[in-house]
Amino acid sequence: MISQSFTPSPTLKNADTLHAVAKALVADCKGVLAADESTGSIKKRLESVGKENSDDNRREWRDLMFTAEGPWKNSAITFEETLMKHNAQLSTRFKGTPLRDVIKKRGIIPGIKTDKGTNPLPRTEPEETTTEGLDGLLERSQDYYNAGVRFAKFRTTYVVTASTPSQLAIENNAEIQARYASTSQAAGLVPIVEPEVLCNGDFTIERSAEAHIAAYTHLFRTLTLHKVDFSDMILKASMVVPGDKSGKVATPEQVGAATLHMLSKTVPPLVPGIVSLSSGLSEKDALAYFNAINKLAKRDHSSASWKLSFSFGRALQGEAMKVWAETGDVKKTQETFLLRAKWCWEAAQGEYKGEAGEPSR
Amino acid sequence: MISQSFTPSPTLKNADTLHAVAKALVADCKGVLAADESTGSIKKRLESVGKENSDDNRREWRDLMFTAEGPWKNSAITFEETLMKHNAQLSTRFKGTPLRDVIKKRGIIPGIKTDKGTNPLPRTEPEETTTEGLDGLLERSQDYYNAGVRFAKFRTTYVVTASTPSQLAIENNAEIQARYASTSQAAGLVPIVEPEVLCNGDFTIERSAEAHIAAYTHLFRTLTLHKVDFSDMILKASMVVPGDKSGKVATPEQVGAATLHMLSKTVPPLVPGIVSLSSGLSEKDALAYFNAINKLAKRDHSSASWKLSFSFGRALQGEAMKVWAETGDVKKTQETFLLRAKWCWEAAQGEYKGEAGEPSR
Amino acid sequence: MISQSFTPSPTLKNADTLHAVAKALVADCKGVLAADESTGSIKKRLESVGKENSDDNRREWRDLMFTAEGPWKNSAITFEETLMKHNAQLSTRFKGTPLRDVIKKRGIIPGIKTDKGTNPLPRTEPEETTTEGLDGLLERSQDYYNAGVRFAKFRTTYVVTASTPSQLAIENNAEIQARYASTSQAAGLVPIVEPEVLCNGDFTIERSAEAHIAAYTHLFRTLTLHKVDFSDMILKASMVVPGDKSGKVATPEQVGAATLHMLSKTVPPLVPGIVSLSSGLSEKDALAYFNAINKLAKRDHSSASWKLSFSFGRALQGEAMKVWAETGDVKKTQETFLLRAKWCWEAAQGEYKGEAGEPSR
Amino acid sequence: MISQSFTPSPTLKNADTLHAVAKALVADCKGVLAADESTGSIKKRLESVGKENSDDNRREWRDLMFTAEGPWKNSAITFEETLMKHNAQLSTRFKGTPLRDVIKKRGIIPGIKTDKGTNPLPRTEPEETTTEGLDGLLERSQDYYNAGVRFAKFRTTYVVTASTPSQLAIENNAEIQARYASTSQAAGLVPIVEPEVLCNGDFTIERSAEAHIAAYTHLFRTLTLHKVDFSDMILKASMVVPGDKSGKVATPEQVGAATLHMLSKTVPPLVPGIVSLSSGLSEKDALAYFNAINKLAKRDHSSASWKLSFSFGRALQGEAMKVWAETGDVKKTQETFLLRAKWCWEAAQGEYKGEAGEPSR
Repeated sequence: MISQSFTPSPTLKNADTLHAVAKALVADCKGVLAADESTGSIKKRLESVGKENSDDNRREWRDLMFTAEGPWKNSAITFEETLMKHNAQLSTRFKGTPLRDVIKKRGIIPGIKTDKGTNPLPRTEPEETTTEGLDGLLERSQDYYNAGVRFAKFRTTYVVTASTPSQLAIENNAEIQARYASTSQAAGLVPIVEPEVLCNGDFTIERSAEAHIAAYTHLFRTLTLHKVDFSDMILKASMVVPGDKSGKVATPEQVGAATLHMLSKTVPPLVPGIVSLSSGLSEKDALAYFNAINKLAKRDHSSASWKLSFSFGRALQGEAMKVWAETGDVKKTQETFLLRAKWCWEAAQGEYKGEAGEPSR
Repeated sequence: MISQSFTPSPTLKNADTLHAVAKALVADCKGVLAADESTGSIKKRLESVGKENSDDNRREWRDLMFTAEGPWKNSAITFEETLMKHNAQLSTRFKGTPLRDVIKKRGIIPGIKTDKGTNPLPRTEPEETTTEGLDGLLERSQDYYNAGVRFAKFRTTYVVTASTPSQLAIENNAEIQARYASTSQAAGLVPIVEPEVLCNGDFTIERSAEAHIAAYTHLFRTLTLHKVDFSDMILKASMVVPGDKSGKVATPEQVGAATLHMLSKTVPPLVPGIVSLSSGLSEKDALAYFNAINKLAKRDHSSASWKLSFSFGRALQGEAMKVWAETGDVKKTQETFLLRAKWCWEAAQGEYKGEAGEPSR
Repeated sequence: MISQSFTPSPTLKNADTLHAVAKALVADCKGVLAADESTGSIKKRLESVGKENSDDNRREWRDLMFTAEGPWKNSAITFEETLMKHNAQLSTRFKGTPLRDVIKKRGIIPGIKTDKGTNPLPRTEPEETTTEGLDGLLERSQDYYNAGVRFAKFRTTYVVTASTPSQLAIENNAEIQARYASTSQAAGLVPIVEPEVLCNGDFTIERSAEAHIAAYTHLFRTLTLHKVDFSDMILKASMVVPGDKSGKVATPEQVGAATLHMLSKTVPPLVPGIVSLSSGLSEKDALAYFNAINKLAKRDHSSASWKLSFSFGRALQGEAMKVWAETGDVKKTQETFLLRAKWCWEAAQGEYKGEAGEPSR
Repeated sequence: MISQSFTPSPTLKNADTLHAVAKALVADCKGVLAADESTGSIKKRLESVGKENSDDNRREWRDLMFTAEGPWKNSAITFEETLMKHNAQLSTRFKGTPLRDVIKKRGIIPGIKTDKGTNPLPRTEPEETTTEGLDGLLERSQDYYNAGVRFAKFRTTYVVTASTPSQLAIENNAEIQARYASTSQAAGLVPIVEPEVLCNGDFTIERSAEAHIAAYTHLFRTLTLHKVDFSDMILKASMVVPGDKSGKVATPEQVGAATLHMLSKTVPPLVPGIVSLSSGLSEKDALAYFNAINKLAKRDHSSASWKLSFSFGRALQGEAMKVWAETGDVKKTQETFLLRAKWCWEAAQGEYKGEAGEPSR
């Protein structure tokens, strides 16, 4: 990690604390659990395993994850109701405690998703997106900080075709991410900047790399323009894969090499860490690809100064949610969840040997 | 150094050879001797020690440097006449051999300055500069390649005040550097991209950092736009110092921290190496600052993936030229020159302990 | 005005209606009354004449303006409560009618301010601003459209010093304006894009021109990127004046020439009209400067294709509000208000001969 | 045309003279004869009519054009040898006089092509181009000025496909044009900026409009950045047509509407004039399209402040060259040439009624 001995001007108050949180988020390959599904997103997840999207079910599911005690404790990004509204019910130890306090008591760093979702950019063909959530963001972020939150997450998305991401989408989303990041830092929150290049479409892995490079290069250039401290932020990056409608499958080694090439071309060394996202990938692929990235990074051991970690949602939650829906057995569900945490931890060291769906040996 | 296992598209032929040269240029702290003074620049140097700017004197001085045999052998950037016209005369071993062949026989990687110098940007206040040299550059570069040259150097300059470098200067010079770099790579030459932020003026070290960050960020963004392979290029960077008319002096530690911060914010890890330039600095300051950069980089040992080396002109040549002018003694001159090479080599490891002007202990 | 016979792709539905509204807004020099003061801004105005900022007073003041019947009927930008909440009380004819319907019945085109005010851009020195209001803008705009609103207004501001507007402020505000404009057009509202270069500070008229040119050039470039139809928008532009702390006073002719030069350098002919804003200027200066612009534009009669009109707040309302506060006399107040409308109408033709504060002859 | 009463800072010396030349170039629909074919281009033209590309033939052909006396006298862009080397031979009046002096004596404003042709941009797919000619441009331009030249021309080209012109080509060529234009103005030459969107390819007229808009918007934004005086320059613009391999034919009215829409969206009113180029079009189409543009501009008579004129090469020279090659009859050739000049003059007023290949009625 890069020395902090030079203080850029104008000084950011809380820079030291922000930097400590940023480092902690990517330390020891612990990862960041993405449990920040909006009410709409969690609905899809719950319904896919046959559960109703009730307040109770959402509460129980998150309660279950945050009270699952085991060695593989992640930081966690939450959705607003988890943080501000729900109380723990399942465990004896925490019964009645607000989940927000459960998280803090267990030494998990709490974060929150502050974006308000994507929307179409008018008159784009194919349709591209922008993200909302900047109105009143400083005040909201300060409220979250006062409630104990220490980092925030904001997601923008990019559509890949022969002619997209367009310059419009690239500039618009970079501007939005940069304003979110500088506002978060001003409020004492470490921004996790998540520019997701969607894996949906008919394109090669080379085209995906190109799209990532165009989007991320402009993003970091704009973060600099907005005076964002790179030492006090985390990048949540998509992996470089062929489009899901391309009829092509890449090996984990190809995905690892392409992803590492792309990150090394776009992410300045001052950024303390990068967490991979798994959106759109199966648990199995997410683990295999992420493992390959780390294996390669380890081999070329001076390859990058940033730490590589993960921030998975479905890859950590999916199987466990199935068990929960099928059995209702809290203990079994939590074990399933913790096993995924262990696999991710192994993959973060490039040492994941098992196979998703089966215990790793 | 970053893995080369992913091939970006469209493929650059010769990528492997280019990458090998780029790595060699920054390997083992050997450094790159900047002996590419144009006829106008060498005139000033020679006259400052009381020598006439004759073809003979220019030949002899360069002959002397390129035949100085010792353990600290650098790569070398040459001016066109050195490469294409002059023969060695001084040493028995190489007498009559074109300097170009002397360089190759001694295992020095030969490079050439391909820019044609800076010119004012019309209507800028204060006056800022652009650089010429792009007309016919592909053909010239191919000719140099055929003559054995393996890398090229191109310099742009930036003026620091409260309102500069202007967006105009930043964009213009980035565009020019990027076109030079992509053209060089197309011709088989590793580009040494030299965006020099001038140290002349009345500004703080923080303002220098800010100016560097603005210029270098846009530069790398534009290199990406021009599809320059970062694995196959070198950056020649200025150090972050207070302006020479600011009345302020920075400690080597401050210069080291500010320079490393700036580089870590702007230079992607895929770039194999960065060489420091010493223009405008005394031999003593150049060595002390460069040493501090490396000491700091070593301490935070994962601080960056790129190699840090040097490409000095005056700091390597200055003292030796004085000895040559005063004594005419070839051996003594070469010893003085080689001692500077040793000091630079020590500083490149953060272990320079002596003081310029005195032997290092 | 420019021919609409070519349909750019992708087609904007409602383009014809939008274009008709845009043309109507700048037709016949009628002008656009800026009565869109937020609750905070109207407070300052009311208190400056000794009136309490009560819901009643706000209602009465706006009631008074919208029911003032006379030959100089403007279009009007309103604040949300005017449009969505207040009813007319003063006139026999409209008593009890929602102001929204009064406006429509009187043939005034109703508009609404959709921005949510300016906020500081973090870490800018001097402090520069961004504007909020994009979250949920499409839905809000559609609601306004359904309530009869036909145009919207969104204001961003720029601070002028030797080093600002910064590239950050220029890019951020252009991006925001462009997204507002494309969203408004998608919802059927003609966007009045208002990039106000603030007149506060110590700068020359030449520096003001330079700042305007930098900001407006990037703005129109970004409007194009966002596929905004220029035929279906209006620009609300500040006038080019020396800073109010510069100790310099420009003649109306100088302001006219500088403003017209700036607009002719930055605003494409496809834009149907430009309305001048008077913020920060006295009633007297606003009228004199605006008159000079139109006089000059008329003399060089092919000078521009866009129509030049006005969108004044204080210059139309200020004196009338004083009369209202002092006398409570509705008729006298409305006459004062209508006289300003007449003066503005004269100035829009470059024929304003009187002096603010006195009847024009 | 726009008032010049405001002087932007920093002042451009010779602004008045430059502005007078710029206005003269587009006055009275006289047009600008593009006789600046490079030695390579004129070769193709000559050989297509069966003439050898000899120095003599080039001299005679240009002699013939420049001494053709008639009412439709154009300004003229020349190639370097015409201006600096060739003497008139054909006419009694001018025999032995350098063509440069013939041009001046006949009251034709002489211009020169200062670009050095297009070259590929490395690694672009499809291959896009950049233009060379900036090295030493200030000195060359000053030499031309001293030889009596009053304007210069510089051409860049853009390739249209689904994914091009790329951001790379757009930025690179805008940067080059802007530097050419500011350098020309500094040397006292009015720049004719020629960004030609090539009509070769398989694309719709809408895609052509889109490509033009993207390229020209960025061009004018960059001309502003380079402090180019818009009052003292001319734009040489391509017409918006479907690609020649699209299998689609547009009517003159469609081309006129699309071209006027595009120009009105991108060219600020301060630019005194736009000349259309005819490259790639037949004489017949060039005349019909250009006529339609002017007819439409006249109908919507306030449509634009800039003057619309033409700068044709083949459309003026093609038929005459055939006559010359076939008959060797100077008088007949000159009559053919002058008839085209008359047609163009008619079309510039939207009143061209005849058909190319036949006398206009």
